[in-house]
Amino acid sequence: MAQDSIAQNVPDARDNRTTGMCAKEPMQADGIVRLSKVEVYPEYLEEYRRYAVEVGEISLRTEAGVLTMYAVQEIDNPCRITILETYASQEAYKSHIASAHFQKYKQGTLHMVKALVLSDQKPLNEANRITNFITPAGRDSRREPDAR
Amino acid sequence: MAQDSIAQNVPDARDNRTTGMCAKEPMQADGIVRLSKVEVYPEYLEEYRRYAVEVGEISLRTEAGVLTMYAVQEIDNPCRITILETYASQEAYKSHIASAHFQKYKQGTLHMVKALVLSDQKPLNEANRITNFITPAGRDSRREPDAR
Repeated sequence: MAQDSIAQNVPDARDNRTTGMCAKEPMQADGIVRLSKVEVYPEYLEEYRRYAVEVGEISLRTEAGVLTMYAVQEIDNPCRITILETYASQEAYKSHIASAHFQKYKQGTLHMVKALVLSDQKPLNEANRITNFITPAGRDSRREPDAR
Repeated sequence: MAQDSIAQNVPDARDNRTTGMCAKEPMQADGIVRLSKVEVYPEYLEEYRRYAVEVGEISLRTEAGVLTMYAVQEIDNPCRITILETYASQEAYKSHIASAHFQKYKQGTLHMVKALVLSDQKPLNEANRITNFITPAGRDSRREPDAR
């Protein structure tokens, strides 16, 4: 009974919502928890969004050291985006920023970004954990930016 | 093989890290994703932290409609705390703020809070999901504020 109750609460490996997610590394002492605060020029918002969705999906699906990449937009000003990024280690972060998908995002969106603040964080409670994953069922259909 | 790889990536119901978490409601159309930005007076920071840890743990463990309550502190200024709060519905949010544990936190910390901004958000990518849970193994030992 307790098992059933718990099973409803967490992604289940038998559930294809998590298909295609790579295994993840545990958080290391030199891991990074970051709030990246991005302000995008309004005229580029939809294009920026496509790039950000793509890099988030590829990073979560394929990088063992990218533990979270969860982006939200302010309802009152959708041009203000906050991304909760968690990297298992400094090495994982270096590997991420060197990746082709991150470089495509970074170079492709440089002119769209009005302001960027990287604010490193520490969880308030080490026992409070999050798992971040992509659901194929709800996969964003607008996620492929044109190559440029 | 794919199953094994996926299983490493998500909390497993057989793993007692998730013991004691209640089943969760699905996100509804009127659900809330919020970044609560709290600035705490430095002299109260540790005491505030204990209250916040307690209310976060009880809410996640016992409230079906509290989907995330994940708090981080700025490394450069630990008095600046950001909480990623997700409520499955307006009803779930009302139930949360009416709860004894939330009222204990709210009334107990009023004098500790210098500033509070509730910033409602919209996820950038509906396919990008997070699950938030408490690990008994790492449970914070300093989490019981004195009753007052």
